[in-house]
Amino acid sequence: MIKKILVANRGDIAVRIIRTCKELNIKTVAIYSKADSECLHRYLADESICIGPNNISKSYNNIDNIIYLALKLECDAIHPGFGFLSENHEFARKCEENNIIFIGPSKKQMVLMSDKSRARETVISLGIKVVPGSDGVLKNKEEAFEVANKIGYPVIIKASNGGGGKGMRIVYTQDELFSNFDIASSESLASFGSSDLYMEKFIENPRHIEVQVFGDRFSNAIHLGGRDCSMQRKNQKVLEESLSNYLSEEEKNNLYKSAVNIVKGTNYIGAGTIEFIVDKHKNFYFIEMNTRIQVEHPVTEMITGIDLIKLQILIADNKPIPFTQKEIVFKGHAIECRINAEIPEEEFKPCPGEITSLNIPGGFGTRFDTFVYCGYTIPPLYDSMIGKLICWSESREECIKKINRALDEIIIEGVRTNIDFQKSLINSEAFLEDRHYTKFIENEFLGNKQIATTI
Amino acid sequence: MIKKILVANRGDIAVRIIRTCKELNIKTVAIYSKADSECLHRYLADESICIGPNNISKSYNNIDNIIYLALKLECDAIHPGFGFLSENHEFARKCEENNIIFIGPSKKQMVLMSDKSRARETVISLGIKVVPGSDGVLKNKEEAFEVANKIGYPVIIKASNGGGGKGMRIVYTQDELFSNFDIASSESLASFGSSDLYMEKFIENPRHIEVQVFGDRFSNAIHLGGRDCSMQRKNQKVLEESLSNYLSEEEKNNLYKSAVNIVKGTNYIGAGTIEFIVDKHKNFYFIEMNTRIQVEHPVTEMITGIDLIKLQILIADNKPIPFTQKEIVFKGHAIECRINAEIPEEEFKPCPGEITSLNIPGGFGTRFDTFVYCGYTIPPLYDSMIGKLICWSESREECIKKINRALDEIIIEGVRTNIDFQKSLINSEAFLEDRHYTKFIENEFLGNKQIATTI
Repeated sequence: MIKKILVANRGDIAVRIIRTCKELNIKTVAIYSKADSECLHRYLADESICIGPNNISKSYNNIDNIIYLALKLECDAIHPGFGFLSENHEFARKCEENNIIFIGPSKKQMVLMSDKSRARETVISLGIKVVPGSDGVLKNKEEAFEVANKIGYPVIIKASNGGGGKGMRIVYTQDELFSNFDIASSESLASFGSSDLYMEKFIENPRHIEVQVFGDRFSNAIHLGGRDCSMQRKNQKVLEESLSNYLSEEEKNNLYKSAVNIVKGTNYIGAGTIEFIVDKHKNFYFIEMNTRIQVEHPVTEMITGIDLIKLQILIADNKPIPFTQKEIVFKGHAIECRINAEIPEEEFKPCPGEITSLNIPGGFGTRFDTFVYCGYTIPPLYDSMIGKLICWSESREECIKKINRALDEIIIEGVRTNIDFQKSLINSEAFLEDRHYTKFIENEFLGNKQIATTI
Repeated sequence: MIKKILVANRGDIAVRIIRTCKELNIKTVAIYSKADSECLHRYLADESICIGPNNISKSYNNIDNIIYLALKLECDAIHPGFGFLSENHEFARKCEENNIIFIGPSKKQMVLMSDKSRARETVISLGIKVVPGSDGVLKNKEEAFEVANKIGYPVIIKASNGGGGKGMRIVYTQDELFSNFDIASSESLASFGSSDLYMEKFIENPRHIEVQVFGDRFSNAIHLGGRDCSMQRKNQKVLEESLSNYLSEEEKNNLYKSAVNIVKGTNYIGAGTIEFIVDKHKNFYFIEMNTRIQVEHPVTEMITGIDLIKLQILIADNKPIPFTQKEIVFKGHAIECRINAEIPEEEFKPCPGEITSLNIPGGFGTRFDTFVYCGYTIPPLYDSMIGKLICWSESREECIKKINRALDEIIIEGVRTNIDFQKSLINSEAFLEDRHYTKFIENEFLGNKQIATTI
């Protein structure tokens, strides 16, 4: 039985994990960098320890310090949240070595899925479609030309170990491929420690739909429905919803079946998200699997009534998933808006500073996950996300009305936020008619058709 | 179609109503007394008007001013909330006369149910048990002796037009009846304008379980399950839950059937609550019907996913209830704690003043309905309730853990509150074992066995 968990994260996900731990009578240890000494997560935990200076590598990513602390404070387990060490298999391995439960999949499964070209090969072998592209890593520029000619332009080159848009280029011609290949390769090396690239056919105006999955040690594999995360800016999700109304019931079921097959086929244990892109003809292609909890997990909680952090902890504690697929009922519709301290008019420049006034929205079907409070100073060091507004209603249409109402209620003074930007996105014709796509914000909404190669 | 609603209330229920109106694209007018000029409800409404000075009869209970304002501002409807004019049939009549929709039942139904002895006769005629007692109003003290001898002591005498404990006496002997009858009678006259009393057998240590019902103009009658409100102090509910685990499935269904029969038998239209007391042997007896929304309605919303204010507005707008009884699914368990600005150690004396620091609890399945914010000054004039914490979880046991977690998160500085009192109630053996009763707080929890006659 897990009795004490070190939460190796900060901000809203640290608060989120601590809440569930308290409900499970599990003690918690919060860690925080010097800059985060006023962050809510450290006040909510049973114990809290400054893990290091502001620099991420010396604090939240300091594997040795975190392991040392977990041992010293007799923690049975570590929950990595998202970001930071959550997909670092070295960290998972060191936890295992030290007899600390890493709340996530095994090191082996993380290695498999973090290598995007190996992940791709694996899902192909399970009979799931991926976007046509290279067989794994491109050996060199010449092979890139060859593959591009075979699958046809436009193509996209991506960092094998990457994520978040770094090392990624869309190219429409052989000339563009020539000039971008080396840049992408060195960007990849700088960001992810490897210059390996792979190539895919570029799908025009796709939707991003992902499936929340769970596997346990008793060969159970389930899905908790899909999340439509097609509203993105520079490959970063901006708002998410569940389920996706873009697909028919039959299409959704096929998508879910594929996702569960990946869990079964890899004997995956823990929470995972299988990301797909979906083209105009509703063909879906696997893009990657995230081996951790996601920022947008609350929309799934709202429509299923299932606490995903609790399920992660149960599975890590060698328990079976306590329900069957058939017992999971999807009810209503949920939307999440990420609330960032940033200035949309100034290219979404982060806007740290002190929150001098705060009104959190409330009411039926309204949830606001945050780590800030009135008087809190947002440090300039981390992600600009300061909260997530999640609304639930019977239908997508009603949920849009509710999230409008809730966005109107938020008052945040002292820093600039993207609340007005979110309001106009929510009320854009494309979102209301459910015909937005992953490049909608850059290509249409911001009014300046950006050249695709600059993503 | 209702397009504009005047919300004839203040505080959390005014905020609650405005939220749903916004989600329905209905414009709102908030009214406020001078003392309430900083109350959140007036900021959330589309328009807000000071309705009068602090005195309730000159502001929130000023029927003529409110009707005048509704007409002047072209409101189609008035939502009375709870308390104030919500059960005032004169107000309902004047709304009708002025072609304003009163969001509640008809004047006739309000008159019937507000007269407790007529309500009692009505439900008896529908075959529903009431606590044995007088046939309606007691003519005089002599009849009181006669009835008490017939049904056996202890008995309780109550004001015919009363509520909230005023004009109410429990008597154990003929001598006590002799000395209390006149006091109760004059208390009743002073509080409710009528000295009429009736008598019932006093049920020892009962549970208070109520059923949320709705009727519409198309002869549909439904229930939304029960609420267990057995934790009370001086006949005021302190915490509530839904469903009631005290009853078996079969007992619950019998209770619900009786409640729906009352809706059908009186052609009741709108939201109502049928209150029962339940004895040790699980016999249930009708006590009264409230013809309005209740403070504790959110626990029902949490387990059904149905917005009760929306349903009230739909029905008032001549629409049918948009689902059948069979389509209503009860999921999980919900508990509400009323958060009051008061000093439990000083006989729950109200503690108005400025809120200098505020942290509202959040997370999955956590709702906090309030009208206060950091910097708000609670006026000394109204109810001491400043918020309601409502938690939802899969089971009662888990819900208790969650509400403990959420209570721990609340920070309210500047005024004293009953948060610690609520924590100790939630964790009392009696509540954990679900064996508390309506006099538990006075008789056991507060440690000083009070004499029953002083309730």
